[in-house]
Amino acid sequence: MYEKTIEQWGMFEWSGKGKSSGNPFADVTIRGRFQGPGEDVTTEGFYDGDGVYKIRFMPRNQGHYTFQIGGDFSDESFAGEFDVTAPGEGNHGPVSVCNTYCLQYADGTPYYSIGTTCYVWELQSDALIEKTLQNLEKAGFNKIRFCIFPKHYDYNLREPRSYPYEGTPMDSSVLTRENFQEYTGKTEGNHWDFYRFNPAHFRHIEDCIRKLSAIGVEADIIVFHPYDRWGFSSMSRAEDTFYMKYLINRLSAFRNVWWAMANEYDLFEEKNAADWDYIGNYFMEHDPYQHLRSIHNCHEFFDHSKPWITHVSAQRIDIYRTVENTDEIRKTYQKPVIWDEISYEGNIQFGWGNITGEEMVRRFWEASMRGAYPGHGETYYNEEDILWWSHGGDLHGESHKRFAFLHRILCETPGNGLKIDTSRRDGWDCALAMPADEDLAEKTGYRIYYFSFMRPSLRDFTWADDTSYRVEVIDTWNMTITDAGVHRGTFRIQLPGRPYIAVRIRKA
Amino acid sequence: MYEKTIEQWGMFEWSGKGKSSGNPFADVTIRGRFQGPGEDVTTEGFYDGDGVYKIRFMPRNQGHYTFQIGGDFSDESFAGEFDVTAPGEGNHGPVSVCNTYCLQYADGTPYYSIGTTCYVWELQSDALIEKTLQNLEKAGFNKIRFCIFPKHYDYNLREPRSYPYEGTPMDSSVLTRENFQEYTGKTEGNHWDFYRFNPAHFRHIEDCIRKLSAIGVEADIIVFHPYDRWGFSSMSRAEDTFYMKYLINRLSAFRNVWWAMANEYDLFEEKNAADWDYIGNYFMEHDPYQHLRSIHNCHEFFDHSKPWITHVSAQRIDIYRTVENTDEIRKTYQKPVIWDEISYEGNIQFGWGNITGEEMVRRFWEASMRGAYPGHGETYYNEEDILWWSHGGDLHGESHKRFAFLHRILCETPGNGLKIDTSRRDGWDCALAMPADEDLAEKTGYRIYYFSFMRPSLRDFTWADDTSYRVEVIDTWNMTITDAGVHRGTFRIQLPGRPYIAVRIRKA
Repeated sequence: MYEKTIEQWGMFEWSGKGKSSGNPFADVTIRGRFQGPGEDVTTEGFYDGDGVYKIRFMPRNQGHYTFQIGGDFSDESFAGEFDVTAPGEGNHGPVSVCNTYCLQYADGTPYYSIGTTCYVWELQSDALIEKTLQNLEKAGFNKIRFCIFPKHYDYNLREPRSYPYEGTPMDSSVLTRENFQEYTGKTEGNHWDFYRFNPAHFRHIEDCIRKLSAIGVEADIIVFHPYDRWGFSSMSRAEDTFYMKYLINRLSAFRNVWWAMANEYDLFEEKNAADWDYIGNYFMEHDPYQHLRSIHNCHEFFDHSKPWITHVSAQRIDIYRTVENTDEIRKTYQKPVIWDEISYEGNIQFGWGNITGEEMVRRFWEASMRGAYPGHGETYYNEEDILWWSHGGDLHGESHKRFAFLHRILCETPGNGLKIDTSRRDGWDCALAMPADEDLAEKTGYRIYYFSFMRPSLRDFTWADDTSYRVEVIDTWNMTITDAGVHRGTFRIQLPGRPYIAVRIRKA
Repeated sequence: MYEKTIEQWGMFEWSGKGKSSGNPFADVTIRGRFQGPGEDVTTEGFYDGDGVYKIRFMPRNQGHYTFQIGGDFSDESFAGEFDVTAPGEGNHGPVSVCNTYCLQYADGTPYYSIGTTCYVWELQSDALIEKTLQNLEKAGFNKIRFCIFPKHYDYNLREPRSYPYEGTPMDSSVLTRENFQEYTGKTEGNHWDFYRFNPAHFRHIEDCIRKLSAIGVEADIIVFHPYDRWGFSSMSRAEDTFYMKYLINRLSAFRNVWWAMANEYDLFEEKNAADWDYIGNYFMEHDPYQHLRSIHNCHEFFDHSKPWITHVSAQRIDIYRTVENTDEIRKTYQKPVIWDEISYEGNIQFGWGNITGEEMVRRFWEASMRGAYPGHGETYYNEEDILWWSHGGDLHGESHKRFAFLHRILCETPGNGLKIDTSRRDGWDCALAMPADEDLAEKTGYRIYYFSFMRPSLRDFTWADDTSYRVEVIDTWNMTITDAGVHRGTFRIQLPGRPYIAVRIRKA
């Protein structure tokens, strides 16, 4: 069963009945070969329960494709063909790295990531999931980080809507906010078969990934995380591998999937650097589409020079100097930097979750001017105990209202990406951004001076005498762009004397 | 001529007529020996113009003192005696280093420095000087940094009320805000005799130092600075030495004098590290009272391991992480850290002079919790072109209103000084301060959790079950201290969920 026409970077799926004796997850194979213009991909399928097997494929070109499907799942083998049409509106293909530090969609459109984190938004009720999707779209987020496994952490002790494995969890009725830490990492009382998945769990997550795709949101999937009372963070290497294989076979054909090997890798007691290397390399070797791969830190960055890591997924490791460390990280690892955790806007008791909306927006701009990609999260106490950072739902803060404005400005960058202009002395006290493409930077004269928490009430500029520059004053908090005229040589621009102001200059 | 009774740490001054032929500044000697309980000090006098010679002495003990005065200034020699009484109210003696990182007055009172900078406040009109003194007292500053030499810098191009030397300055009528940098460091047009001082200049400065002393303000005297169009920053070593000697002989008997060898030593084109060593060592060898000695940086810290440096006079070298670097600086140099320049509150165009009052107060608290001493300055544009940081005058900002409150709290520290408590995990996301004296810290349980720009709306604490703790919530911006009751074991404190909050805990 399959569709005869799909769009480029859409998902082709074949499904059919097969053997259901024994353990179909473990004992049965299904393999496919897909051939089309410039492509010849061999990939594996998966067992979806109830005797149904599926195999998926994401065509990266347009035109006529053929396929053959085999394996011991069935006594038959299957072949067929389909046509790949132009991508539909909003479909730019998967995101990948370009020019060392930048990201772009497969169709060449620059990707300026405006991310957020809702760790287990997809394991909540249908109503809450729907609300999250609406709010993601409204705020203009284009990436969300979330987990496959349920989460056991402060403010998140409830059972998930489903589990990834067949079996039963420990009795959680004894858990309270006060004693939950005693249960962290404890596995007694759980009864799982790590070789039998619960397909409904994955089907539901896929449904969520599809909905994200429809609103232009990348799904930054956290493969493993340490906030655990079920034992999913301490499986054996064989069990991990079995899980990764299933994940890849089910999800890699979604164009908006990214792989985050770990959240806070350094909090796992049972995994060391070699384990993470194994996991990362597994994805690099088995994902036919080479989706973006990362590993996220708590206290200390993983060695990001490893080839399996496509970009830095950073958590700030200093309370005070956060995204301002971008330049050093870029220099060290020569990869795009995504600040997936720079503290969350909120008012909870922990310092990772109680910065102001102003500070969050400031960090977004500071990161963006440096050519890094910022990430949001929200942790406001509320009566329903529904915190965006964990559950999704409603946004209570102020920062999210200002990201679409930033995104719009980023999209106006000549070429793809910004970086710090270190050549001008008048950038010493601000983040002075120029296009990453130096030819375009020269040609357009495009610069953004971002003054952060500082508040000049005027600013003198000296640019070439023989060129006219259009100057705009940007209020990044109030989201206004004010024309400040065309100037040349040495000129003075009046500024509001408030924090969070930027000046944009470009050749007139 | 002298007074027969002075108070401990007051200034004894003998004056008399002497030779006025030749160059009395250079060719004539005057020396004194002062003997009293536990003291036997030989010191030099100075020529004060009009045939008058003076010699000064600061007694560090109470009781009966005798003196003899000689030298070729006179054909006679002189002897006499005086009594030293208990210090008057507000006289705690000079400040010095104690316990590696702390400062105290000679009578043992802890000195919590709340400094400010008004580079040439004392070279302004009498009316402006009077206003500055009133505002210093009102705000509760207890240290001010200022220069002996006039200042040539943006916003400060006017001629000073007097010059330190006999002679005439270059014609400054040609100076404008636009062209002034061309005149920086240029010495043509000046005609000075670097071996003939203008005593009126120094007498006036002494008058200001005396008035500072009367309101409890330490005079942190900047000996050399690079903002110059008169040639005072590029004198020869012999000329520098002649000046330093005169300064020491005139000023060292003032109990509130400190010596700052340079402002922004690394901006002097004509002085290198060896020159600064020579200058610093000169003060160490010649100042009979061993007043505090420092050297202030622009881009890079001087090597503060030098023995002539008593404390670190720091300018922040990172735009974002400023006083939060205190711990590393303390560890590196094992000396008290005074943040004399952490940017100024204001709205001028330069990043060193346009932070908010909130950010200034935040840096004051961050510094203080780490056992460092913060310094203020203010740079608001105004119609009169009178900027506190340079001229003194009126304060236009918000931060200065909040320093007396901080000072009051610092004075409540058991013992002398705070430091960061690194032993408790719940300090990871805040500045958790404890008394520098570990015995007192243990005995009193005294701690301050300062939450900076973060804004927890509650906080759980776990302290010993067998001890009751008094908890107070401090709003550092609104200057309130709210009793949050007595608690033991694990307890929850409700907080306002605003930035700039601290929690103080001590044994009940």
